[in-house]
Amino acid sequence: MIQLTKRKVVITLGGNAILTDDSSAWGQQEVLKHTAEHLVAFAENGDAIAVSHGNGPQVGNLLLQQEAANSENNPAMPLDTCVAMTQGSIGYWLQSALSKALKAKGLTNDVASIVTQVVVSENDPAFENPSKPVGPFLSEDQAKAQMDETGATFVEDAGRGWRKVVASPKPISIKEEQVIRTLVEHDIIPVTVGGGGIPVILKDGEYTGVEAVIDKDFASQTLAVSLEADLLVILTNVDNVLLNYHQGNEKTLFKVTAAEMQTYVDEKHFAAGSMLPKVEAAIKFVEHNPSGKAIITSLENIQGALLENGGTIITH
Amino acid sequence: MIQLTKRKVVITLGGNAILTDDSSAWGQQEVLKHTAEHLVAFAENGDAIAVSHGNGPQVGNLLLQQEAANSENNPAMPLDTCVAMTQGSIGYWLQSALSKALKAKGLTNDVASIVTQVVVSENDPAFENPSKPVGPFLSEDQAKAQMDETGATFVEDAGRGWRKVVASPKPISIKEEQVIRTLVEHDIIPVTVGGGGIPVILKDGEYTGVEAVIDKDFASQTLAVSLEADLLVILTNVDNVLLNYHQGNEKTLFKVTAAEMQTYVDEKHFAAGSMLPKVEAAIKFVEHNPSGKAIITSLENIQGALLENGGTIITH
Repeated sequence: MIQLTKRKVVITLGGNAILTDDSSAWGQQEVLKHTAEHLVAFAENGDAIAVSHGNGPQVGNLLLQQEAANSENNPAMPLDTCVAMTQGSIGYWLQSALSKALKAKGLTNDVASIVTQVVVSENDPAFENPSKPVGPFLSEDQAKAQMDETGATFVEDAGRGWRKVVASPKPISIKEEQVIRTLVEHDIIPVTVGGGGIPVILKDGEYTGVEAVIDKDFASQTLAVSLEADLLVILTNVDNVLLNYHQGNEKTLFKVTAAEMQTYVDEKHFAAGSMLPKVEAAIKFVEHNPSGKAIITSLENIQGALLENGGTIITH
Repeated sequence: MIQLTKRKVVITLGGNAILTDDSSAWGQQEVLKHTAEHLVAFAENGDAIAVSHGNGPQVGNLLLQQEAANSENNPAMPLDTCVAMTQGSIGYWLQSALSKALKAKGLTNDVASIVTQVVVSENDPAFENPSKPVGPFLSEDQAKAQMDETGATFVEDAGRGWRKVVASPKPISIKEEQVIRTLVEHDIIPVTVGGGGIPVILKDGEYTGVEAVIDKDFASQTLAVSLEADLLVILTNVDNVLLNYHQGNEKTLFKVTAAEMQTYVDEKHFAAGSMLPKVEAAIKFVEHNPSGKAIITSLENIQGALLENGGTIITH
């Protein structure tokens, strides 16, 4: 049934919502059960939701496994395919956990994990400056041989060895946008843009996968804009965004406008690869959708996000 | 737009439609491009289609990779999670290839790969007689240690070493059935029940993944029944089902009733794990849906399947 009056909420999970200390399938499924029990509060509230998630540790482990067995008969899969594989595994765990948690509340929504491609530009400046480390540590000789052979970039990583670095381009659009919209309109909860999505470029009229990783907060913001969501909830391991983090004069942020938040970004309050992309994604979302809100908070504080009165709330 | 008058077709791909001799991601994507060009004939014809696929070589390779890197920090994933991962990888390749082939024909259907769980019974007799080999060859000592530790079953495989065997239970239903139906009704092409689906059992009101593999032909038949499909197309490497295969007096089957086909099954004309499950799935489909047809044929002969005048056609 299509209920256009529902609040539309995109929720993105941080790494600690999937993996804490036990990286076995069982361990990650246990953490996701706990996570799912919090998330269904939105479905219970009558919201239409879409859920996205990171995949950093999982794709890292998968790349190590690929390398460990690499041979002519069992060649290592490239990064785009590995991202797709983690969408399969984490998607499976998350849809199972969500289904159980929904059922426990007497809710009948279906859940569907969608293998999701996210379009990036081949002209994105990130491709000129690959900086995101992926895969195993190699010796200098191994790294240089792979650089010669594949044209990939490797950098020396703080004495621990050489590691491949790939670009982290900005998402432009979501290829499966219409699929996700159709599901949301039919009360089905999509699990999507996992790990930021499989990065694809449009070249000569064809979409082709590239070796890159897309930040999942930016991909989730792109999803939220595309769904015309009312609320983007970015879950992390703190209840609120802090200024002067770990400097003794911390200040907790509650309600902030995008313009104020941009000032804090310019003042370099937020750590790259951690709080910065969350804050930037929040700003971007409310700039694209001025009637929407973005909330950055913890899983434990999800009631605050649900009621739009807790966590750090970013408005236009 | 919902067009209930469309012919509904479930098409299932054999292994050779994905992997021929090059098991790299690139090699498999090239084969799938060719496959997709044939499949879109149905969409061009105005049919609503759903596509399923096997994953034998891919999940086999993935299990070897898991084992090669197995450690406390990077534990090997169990079979149900590995099936989910191949749904991600093959789904990604197949949805890309289908999108390109559709676009080349001027068609605008979206394609969506769905992480799909297939429900089996924990009382399925297959669990008492695990017979499907999966994963790496081990030494007798390694195998016996794993048997003691995990309760898994290993068998000696023709002098090549010891190999784990798992059950191949019959599918009962598809957990994401409503999701798939919603997509098909909106002209979106689902890629689903990949590798026969992730096997789950219903226990104490909860669905739980199990270490088993479901035959993809039976899972596709279950899908076709659930979608009330008009046509189930089972693609393999021959144009027609043959009697007296490789016995010098081969007979090609064209139009056959389910009852006739059952007689041939009883006469043991078909090889287990190869033509037998395809024939049994075809019989089961037309028994459940007497107005439907099942066609077993090759990718090259897909026009015959499209026009329902080629391949081996099984009717009630």
